Amino acid sequence: MKCSRCKAPAVVSLPSHHSAFCEACYLDFFTKQVEKGIRKQKLFTHEDRILVALSGGKDSLALVYELQLQGYNVTGLHIDLGIPSSSAPARNSTEAFCTKHNIPLLVKEMEKEGLAIPMVKERLRRPVCSACGKIKRHFFNKIALEEGFTVLATGHNLDDEIARLFSNTIRWDIPYLGDQGPALEADDEHGGFIRKVKPLWRLSEWETANYAFLRGIENHYASCPYSKGASFTFHKQVWATIENHMPGRKIDFYQGFLERGQPLFAQASEKQSDPLHPCQRCGFPTSAGVCGVCRIREALAEGQ
Amino acid sequence: MKCSRCKAPAVVSLPSHHSAFCEACYLDFFTKQVEKGIRKQKLFTHEDRILVALSGGKDSLALVYELQLQGYNVTGLHIDLGIPSSSAPARNSTEAFCTKHNIPLLVKEMEKEGLAIPMVKERLRRPVCSACGKIKRHFFNKIALEEGFTVLATGHNLDDEIARLFSNTIRWDIPYLGDQGPALEADDEHGGFIRKVKPLWRLSEWETANYAFLRGIENHYASCPYSKGASFTFHKQVWATIENHMPGRKIDFYQGFLERGQPLFAQASEKQSDPLHPCQRCGFPTSAGVCGVCRIREALAEGQ
Repeated sequence: MKCSRCKAPAVVSLPSHHSAFCEACYLDFFTKQVEKGIRKQKLFTHEDRILVALSGGKDSLALVYELQLQGYNVTGLHIDLGIPSSSAPARNSTEAFCTKHNIPLLVKEMEKEGLAIPMVKERLRRPVCSACGKIKRHFFNKIALEEGFTVLATGHNLDDEIARLFSNTIRWDIPYLGDQGPALEADDEHGGFIRKVKPLWRLSEWETANYAFLRGIENHYASCPYSKGASFTFHKQVWATIENHMPGRKIDFYQGFLERGQPLFAQASEKQSDPLHPCQRCGFPTSAGVCGVCRIREALAEGQ
Repeated sequence: MKCSRCKAPAVVSLPSHHSAFCEACYLDFFTKQVEKGIRKQKLFTHEDRILVALSGGKDSLALVYELQLQGYNVTGLHIDLGIPSSSAPARNSTEAFCTKHNIPLLVKEMEKEGLAIPMVKERLRRPVCSACGKIKRHFFNKIALEEGFTVLATGHNLDDEIARLFSNTIRWDIPYLGDQGPALEADDEHGGFIRKVKPLWRLSEWETANYAFLRGIENHYASCPYSKGASFTFHKQVWATIENHMPGRKIDFYQGFLERGQPLFAQASEKQSDPLHPCQRCGFPTSAGVCGVCRIREALAEGQ
């Protein structure tokens, strides 16, 4: 197989783009896809101060690496969840990577916040994934605003977005569909939400893994011991089958949604959705009186 | 396994309804699902004169049988497509069934219309499925209107509807999504479209096949030799996997669409869709100057 651009021997085959690339052309392809994703959805500019959420996995490390290469002003943020088997390797991997590549890094420890995930899991006595997600999003937002960043970027790739879109679509959850996309606008009115963006939205998990491999991005990522059997894993398998049968369908589904579906859902859900207010405890926006994270804190305090 | 209703030994298991049934309770379940489908979507009443399109397959025969049992005024319509290997058994099966059950039957032969499908296929030199679909829908509509029926019913089941909905959704085809549902209203203004309904929309292919089996509905249906590898077959496989993993998801996807998705798409596509006019040749509605079937006739005439 030869590179579709320069005819050198190809190292990566991309049926969804009807292409194959050598190493140099693949890295260029990846860069162009990220550029196109940023430009088409107006995610940010070189004037922005971008906080990049770094889990220590290949997606977020590939993202911050590529954005730095493209000359953006980036800082990493790692949330140390305090999970024995996975948090230490994730944090070490992130710290080593940022040191090696001169990327400024902030680390926030949930242990010090009284929110170490194993303790939350034990006390709440229900699946912890939803609470963990709320906690991470809360601190991403809080730190981004407190430290004066203008945008928060996460490493969600096309497969993550497709799994979420598919889950929202088969339930026809109009408010969630109206809110989904590579950019979620800032909300300054109700206590403050930072603008959130997903610059890897055009690139699949496999394409990002290839990039990480070719760039020599090492990660010693241990998967979370609590997240087994999540429904998104099943949705990703379904879409792997669809993409294999109809190459290119994933990006078409997502782009078609952004162009023709999302605007309808956003308009319809404006009429339905609960208005936001500042949380009575922490001041960050919530549609309830007290936000999800403050309610977790209260539940933990009651259990003591 | 015991029947969920009467505790007799069960013969049918229905994970999507968290139920299992004995023969009598299954037949009652099927009847109630058809009744609910008619009532919820206001498909027709006992005052209507219903023309039922009968291919000779189990779905359409099960439909006309059940509607007759429920006391509706039904007449069958069979289109003889003139395909050597499949049309004769389909027609024989339909005629024998209608004779046995005293169901009035109309038969229309495409050969006599100059539209026998093998000839159309040979002359058009492209995949014939789309042309064949157009031809069938044209004659369903024409005969229903000419013979004074008030509604046309087809045997499309939940799996047919899901495959179509899924295909429309992953392409975000807003006009097609806006038009999809168990009932398509009549259009008297632009030359005339009969009201079209799908009373089996709540029942899967498997549930309908079980009903046909338990009712002793014989069909000697030979599958069409031209329809191999249709994309709907793949979509049905995808949804079989989803339903197996999450029982009940199919009907939820379809009902959620009808309640929350379809109204948004219908509203949006009203603004976009091409207006209908009477076809310049046959007078039936079309968004072009000449309708699809008359264009097929013209293409055939040019080829001679």
